[in-house]
Amino acid sequence: MTTAAGGVLAQRERTALATVGMVGGGQLARMTQQAAIGLDVELRVLTPDPGAPAVLAGARHCPGSPDDLEDLLALAAGCDVVTFDHEHAPFALLSALADAGAVIRPEPAAKRLAQDKSHARGILEQAGFAVPPFAVVPAGEVGALERFADRYGWPIVVKAPRGGYDGRGVAIVAGPDVGDGSALPATEGEWLLEAMVPIAMELAVLVARRPSGWWSTYPVVETVQRDGICRELVMPARVPPAVAEAATAMAVAVAQGINATGILAVELFLTPSGELVVNEIAARPHNSGHATIEATRSSQFENHLRAVLDWPLGSTAMVAPAAATVNLLGPTTPMDLGRTVPTALADPRVAVHLYGKDPAPDRKLGHVTALADDIDTALASAHAAAGIILSP
Amino acid sequence: MTTAAGGVLAQRERTALATVGMVGGGQLARMTQQAAIGLDVELRVLTPDPGAPAVLAGARHCPGSPDDLEDLLALAAGCDVVTFDHEHAPFALLSALADAGAVIRPEPAAKRLAQDKSHARGILEQAGFAVPPFAVVPAGEVGALERFADRYGWPIVVKAPRGGYDGRGVAIVAGPDVGDGSALPATEGEWLLEAMVPIAMELAVLVARRPSGWWSTYPVVETVQRDGICRELVMPARVPPAVAEAATAMAVAVAQGINATGILAVELFLTPSGELVVNEIAARPHNSGHATIEATRSSQFENHLRAVLDWPLGSTAMVAPAAATVNLLGPTTPMDLGRTVPTALADPRVAVHLYGKDPAPDRKLGHVTALADDIDTALASAHAAAGIILSP
Repeated sequence: MTTAAGGVLAQRERTALATVGMVGGGQLARMTQQAAIGLDVELRVLTPDPGAPAVLAGARHCPGSPDDLEDLLALAAGCDVVTFDHEHAPFALLSALADAGAVIRPEPAAKRLAQDKSHARGILEQAGFAVPPFAVVPAGEVGALERFADRYGWPIVVKAPRGGYDGRGVAIVAGPDVGDGSALPATEGEWLLEAMVPIAMELAVLVARRPSGWWSTYPVVETVQRDGICRELVMPARVPPAVAEAATAMAVAVAQGINATGILAVELFLTPSGELVVNEIAARPHNSGHATIEATRSSQFENHLRAVLDWPLGSTAMVAPAAATVNLLGPTTPMDLGRTVPTALADPRVAVHLYGKDPAPDRKLGHVTALADDIDTALASAHAAAGIILSP
Repeated sequence: MTTAAGGVLAQRERTALATVGMVGGGQLARMTQQAAIGLDVELRVLTPDPGAPAVLAGARHCPGSPDDLEDLLALAAGCDVVTFDHEHAPFALLSALADAGAVIRPEPAAKRLAQDKSHARGILEQAGFAVPPFAVVPAGEVGALERFADRYGWPIVVKAPRGGYDGRGVAIVAGPDVGDGSALPATEGEWLLEAMVPIAMELAVLVARRPSGWWSTYPVVETVQRDGICRELVMPARVPPAVAEAATAMAVAVAQGINATGILAVELFLTPSGELVVNEIAARPHNSGHATIEATRSSQFENHLRAVLDWPLGSTAMVAPAAATVNLLGPTTPMDLGRTVPTALADPRVAVHLYGKDPAPDRKLGHVTALADDIDTALASAHAAAGIILSP
């Protein structure tokens, strides 16, 4: 090591207030890095990719894999706390990491709930939360679908309990003829079967929770999903106050119940009859919270850091009456961001977040958030900006 | 260069929307790096210090000195535009850099005005702006002080025209006896002598201006200086609307008049009789704009980047009725930031920005900004938080 590099190291070691290790270096880690700078928190990201979004943004790169205990141990060795930007670190390794003395937030047991949809369904149902009717069956046992549908009707939802995201690992099956089964989730182990819940609106509530038990919630968000991918967000959700209060209370109860720490995102279905059903949970900063960067006093990324460090939480109050976020999903046509992004920024309501990724169809390349006095204006601004950015 | 490093380089080259070179790597560059991430702008900073605040925050380090033309040329070679976080790059070198084809924002002529207080006074006075009575005399000519005071009275202000900041290079002389002169600014060339203007309040206006001429202004800020160092800010300034409008108009006129690009900070004195006098200008992001990070929709750092790239400017509207910023100046007693910062964050109104510097007395180590419904509450919160953070 040269003197100059040693100097950097010494300076970093000397001045950072705390060091947080994050498993994963994607866009959630990238936006966490932005929040870490002000707090003088050093963020280290475990990822095999030296061009990962968070590394490009200046997070310290710890090369390695979330599937490798040695790599996880190396990350933890230099950090006050280890946390996550995704759900892919195997539970067994997280347990081993905890056994080795690492401080992991959320703790492995809570993280497992976000990683394993079957496990989560069972725990949440046992705890008395409304969840969609479900069954856990051996993967590949197509006959089980028909038996489940006999009880709850077609269509049914077939999920891989682990590893899915952005619609991957999920199939909606309309009837008993599944052809050669190639459209069904390819997974070893289990399938999670779910009845289709009638959905009036999809909601998400973000809870920031500290190990010491203090928590804070963000305003309820309305999410629009298509093909299993979150397309847009509206904050606050256009629901009666009683629904927002009930959704918030459910999310807090889940967070307390599973002893979540850091950000916990609770995704809920609102049925046409006004019932709230817990859909999925994510124990990390979450796409449904992107509007918090501009729309609230302290973003989910800052509060994730503060929560995992057991520091007091920042205000989650909104700074504008309405916000809308539209995700920038890679189009099939070529883009010219150097030209289109400045054009989109001509609307002063709009903020752009780009993740530094190579474009690919349906890949999340960034998002835009617009603040306005009313939701229709915010949505119109955000959609217009996204349309401009993604145009050829 | 290893394959891994080459991979990083290739990824950066491929995805960044634009590359901005900044001369200097201090806290202003650090906060610019934070803003650059969302825009996918790669920020490169020219500084000899591998532990500079902006480098620690992930800006790409270009080792070198602002006094070295080769280093400036090397920075410019990889960048779409070169800008600044301080006033110390010599005008002659900037002119040479421009002659070599580099795009410099602000252009050297405008930058020179911010660098050279004597030059600025002359140009502003010629252009019809109210400035304090002044004279430019050979440095060391103590007799000139008395002749100046004969006309404008004691005390007078003696400044080094170049290189001063945070009260350095400025002396207030109470009478003709200057002793051995060691309290006077040590500088070659000239002294700038100024009459003491009676000051009711110090104000600052930040203008973001694009090369294409579009501009936007931030709400007028009230600044409190002690010993030449900015201690605190209040946004918006507690002045009648007519004063705020006049201050804003003056700042815009200065920006247009000198063809400023990027952020231009115009510091003004408000006299007890309600007159506005231009004090100093800074052609870069400025301490008086730190509240914009939390208090406005688009911070001065984001708008500096957008302005120097000639991109549309973000909204400068406030997101709360009142904001106060208190600078964290290094105390003479030891600090324990790992304990005091979390304690200070217990007030949810407060946001903390730490610069990653080694503590030293009176060094700017960070700042806190509080948002509130009224200025008294914001000030009280910001002062309380700063007091906690700086306590032993």
